[in-house]
Amino acid sequence: LKLIDIANTLECKIYSSLEDKEITSVSSYKNASETSITFLSDNKFKSLVEQCGACAVIVKKGETVPNKINLEVDDPYLGYALVSQLFEDKQPVFGHTVHGSSTIDPDTVLHESISVGPGSVIGANCSIGSNTVISACCVIENNVSIGKDCRIDSGVIIRSNCDIGDRVIIQSGTVIGSEGFGNARDGRKFVRIPCFGSVIIENDVEIGANVTIDRGNFEPTILHRGVRIDNLVQIAHNVEIDEHSAIASQTGISGSTKIGKSVLVGGQAGFVGHIEVGDGACIGAKAGVSKNVRPGQTVTGYPARDLMNIRRVEAIQQRLPEMKKELKRLRNEIEELKRIKNNG
Amino acid sequence: LKLIDIANTLECKIYSSLEDKEITSVSSYKNASETSITFLSDNKFKSLVEQCGACAVIVKKGETVPNKINLEVDDPYLGYALVSQLFEDKQPVFGHTVHGSSTIDPDTVLHESISVGPGSVIGANCSIGSNTVISACCVIENNVSIGKDCRIDSGVIIRSNCDIGDRVIIQSGTVIGSEGFGNARDGRKFVRIPCFGSVIIENDVEIGANVTIDRGNFEPTILHRGVRIDNLVQIAHNVEIDEHSAIASQTGISGSTKIGKSVLVGGQAGFVGHIEVGDGACIGAKAGVSKNVRPGQTVTGYPARDLMNIRRVEAIQQRLPEMKKELKRLRNEIEELKRIKNNG
Amino acid sequence: LKLIDIANTLECKIYSSLEDKEITSVSSYKNASETSITFLSDNKFKSLVEQCGACAVIVKKGETVPNKINLEVDDPYLGYALVSQLFEDKQPVFGHTVHGSSTIDPDTVLHESISVGPGSVIGANCSIGSNTVISACCVIENNVSIGKDCRIDSGVIIRSNCDIGDRVIIQSGTVIGSEGFGNARDGRKFVRIPCFGSVIIENDVEIGANVTIDRGNFEPTILHRGVRIDNLVQIAHNVEIDEHSAIASQTGISGSTKIGKSVLVGGQAGFVGHIEVGDGACIGAKAGVSKNVRPGQTVTGYPARDLMNIRRVEAIQQRLPEMKKELKRLRNEIEELKRIKNNG
Repeated sequence: LKLIDIANTLECKIYSSLEDKEITSVSSYKNASETSITFLSDNKFKSLVEQCGACAVIVKKGETVPNKINLEVDDPYLGYALVSQLFEDKQPVFGHTVHGSSTIDPDTVLHESISVGPGSVIGANCSIGSNTVISACCVIENNVSIGKDCRIDSGVIIRSNCDIGDRVIIQSGTVIGSEGFGNARDGRKFVRIPCFGSVIIENDVEIGANVTIDRGNFEPTILHRGVRIDNLVQIAHNVEIDEHSAIASQTGISGSTKIGKSVLVGGQAGFVGHIEVGDGACIGAKAGVSKNVRPGQTVTGYPARDLMNIRRVEAIQQRLPEMKKELKRLRNEIEELKRIKNNG
Repeated sequence: LKLIDIANTLECKIYSSLEDKEITSVSSYKNASETSITFLSDNKFKSLVEQCGACAVIVKKGETVPNKINLEVDDPYLGYALVSQLFEDKQPVFGHTVHGSSTIDPDTVLHESISVGPGSVIGANCSIGSNTVISACCVIENNVSIGKDCRIDSGVIIRSNCDIGDRVIIQSGTVIGSEGFGNARDGRKFVRIPCFGSVIIENDVEIGANVTIDRGNFEPTILHRGVRIDNLVQIAHNVEIDEHSAIASQTGISGSTKIGKSVLVGGQAGFVGHIEVGDGACIGAKAGVSKNVRPGQTVTGYPARDLMNIRRVEAIQQRLPEMKKELKRLRNEIEELKRIKNNG
Repeated sequence: LKLIDIANTLECKIYSSLEDKEITSVSSYKNASETSITFLSDNKFKSLVEQCGACAVIVKKGETVPNKINLEVDDPYLGYALVSQLFEDKQPVFGHTVHGSSTIDPDTVLHESISVGPGSVIGANCSIGSNTVISACCVIENNVSIGKDCRIDSGVIIRSNCDIGDRVIIQSGTVIGSEGFGNARDGRKFVRIPCFGSVIIENDVEIGANVTIDRGNFEPTILHRGVRIDNLVQIAHNVEIDEHSAIASQTGISGSTKIGKSVLVGGQAGFVGHIEVGDGACIGAKAGVSKNVRPGQTVTGYPARDLMNIRRVEAIQQRLPEMKKELKRLRNEIEELKRIKNNG
């Protein structure tokens, strides 16, 4: 890649003499070579970056590093992400082809820009957008719609009637459109409630590995634009996650709960069903959320409570042994006062 | 479907003039059409159901909704479940056939009513009951027995020697018969203990997506009749779950623990190994269960304790800051009393 | 198997008249037959083992069981593990062959001792060691190196550029080399950071089912020699787990965290990113570890604290209701003392 291409991506200026300089990789300061570009997003690494092998560095405007080609931007970490994407290998893992060992239902027509890896299965009446890459051993059942420029990694299963937008990434082993955990009871026996809804995944959503997303009942389960889901997350039927929210690994969201826009959820958090989490809320790792969360609120703990309150209570909990001793001392002193009084 | 078929399923009476009325879907009150049937399981929705588009409604006996065809039953939610099953599409996703791209060992003979989807693999000496549907890219290893009328969704893996009953549903990505996490130690090195047992899944069990169920050692891991397992649950070697118990998502049950009949377990709960949970117990979401639980007991928290006790303690925890202040006030007042005494 | 083979494995002596005795299984005392060998690792089972059907028993040196052939060792549980491995069926599930329905890239050459099951896919430029068994429906992407004597169970996915050592076991549904959960932000939008690193899994590592291990960024994610990972564990990008550590089910380790040697981690534990856990530390089940852990330290709870401290605080928490009552009594008594004083 030429430096000018990188500069253009970052919308920053470089000397014209540098435009043709070849950059071969984006690197951390630890493993940079002479043709690497690196970044400085935290000034505590400044001297390390200065001493590292990279010829170029993405820096915050005005905070240049000596002896490097400086690409000045508002947010070097964002710049690093954008440049990384330039260096990404976007070739389909198993080539630009529909592999002969895949099984495509004759009722599904694939545009020639679509790639399907070995052993993958695509059912009837599916619609798949241009340049989408389906890797190996995927199962796309019937009536599934997938947009353009998607990346469906090896071993993904998308069950019937689900609807995936453009530029969506779904990583290996993830199951989209499993049936929800709904049961009525007939005496001691459970009676399954079939789910007639689907899953809708909007544009620019990215989903990790071995995730499960249940189809809705009546209405769909929805992940809105730009949502990020980490590995091993469980999303139950009729959950709705609004734009640009991010859910870290092993979190579980129970049925019909609504997560607002730009909500951040830590790992291993759990949400009961039928609650609402307001826009911009932050949910701590391992939090057990059993009630609505207000927009912008930060909650943590189990049961989840406001962060400030939790911290205060936790701090005092650590002093419980001391409080217990103080209670005993007070008791003794009062007994002494009463004894004196009675004797007085 | 004709209304008479629905009425027969619910064992309730309708006017003979209504018997031939066509019902095309079961719906919630939100998305009901003129040919829908809906249900009223909670009276707070009565006016919404009354105003909705559905022509028919499943109601509790004696609690009819005006201007609708009322189907009166003891439990409308159960009625809704039963009617939903009538409307379910039970066709095999990839058709009533053994797909040409599947691999069936010659030592396994399949009855013609069995369906196997594209890319699935069935090993030697397997026995599969009539009408069972195995979807795409499943792996059934050797000596596996599967009963009749089962639904094995795409991407399920059933390892050798496991035994699955009738009418069992196993959803995508689930692994049955993985080896347990058993290790001896030789100095600092772990030495694996191979597991010689199997997994037995009895009739009418339903298992979600991306679940893992380890084979037992010596004796089998057992899920008894009617058990329900949600997505991403871990069931370790030699666990036994008795009839009609339900385990919500992301719960983990450690080796040799026994769960009784009709036990309900919330999401993300964890159980240590070698304990017993009595019949009818309820285990709260995120509970960490480290001891036996008595029949009928409700426990929650970490470590799990009786619900009533936990709630009482938690309520007081929130008042710890106030208790700490009160302690300090009492200290000051006692010091004042002692000062007066000494001066007195 | 002849008894002499077992004795040789255990490095213990038997009478030469017993050398040819046939042993057909290793069993627990509950299901032992006349040709079984069992073990006694805990003396409380001594009378049960004595009465059981097994002809031979592995015992601690000097603690022989009457009327059995005794194989005396330092650690009977380790002896049991080693003998169990002798009885293990190590045949490839789908036979010693590269199955015709598998897809092997022409740029990958397989030694004839390697087995590949039906429906598996192996990409370009892979290197696979002798006697390694890849079961059914696995996907090995491009430039993957796998050592010798490995067992890759059905449905495993190993993404491009990962590096697996010798004698590694990876169980079904596990994903190695998924992309990490790294995002920069551009206003409200997330911008994905592609991961250029790999996953390195050293010799003798064993990994359970439906695990996810993300590839590193720049540097690899590493599991060192002899590590044990249970089912449904999440290992994020750039995590490093040192030799002979064991991680129980459903635990999650966030990005760049380093776990030392011989660390034991209970189930459903969680680790924040960028921390270090010292050699020999023990982490309790469900612990939420948010800070460095010292070598040899035992922590538990959420947030994780030293075990001794946690136990002390928890014990007092249960007495909070009593403490609250005592506070109120003290308040009343002080008020009474003050009243008397003022009246005095």
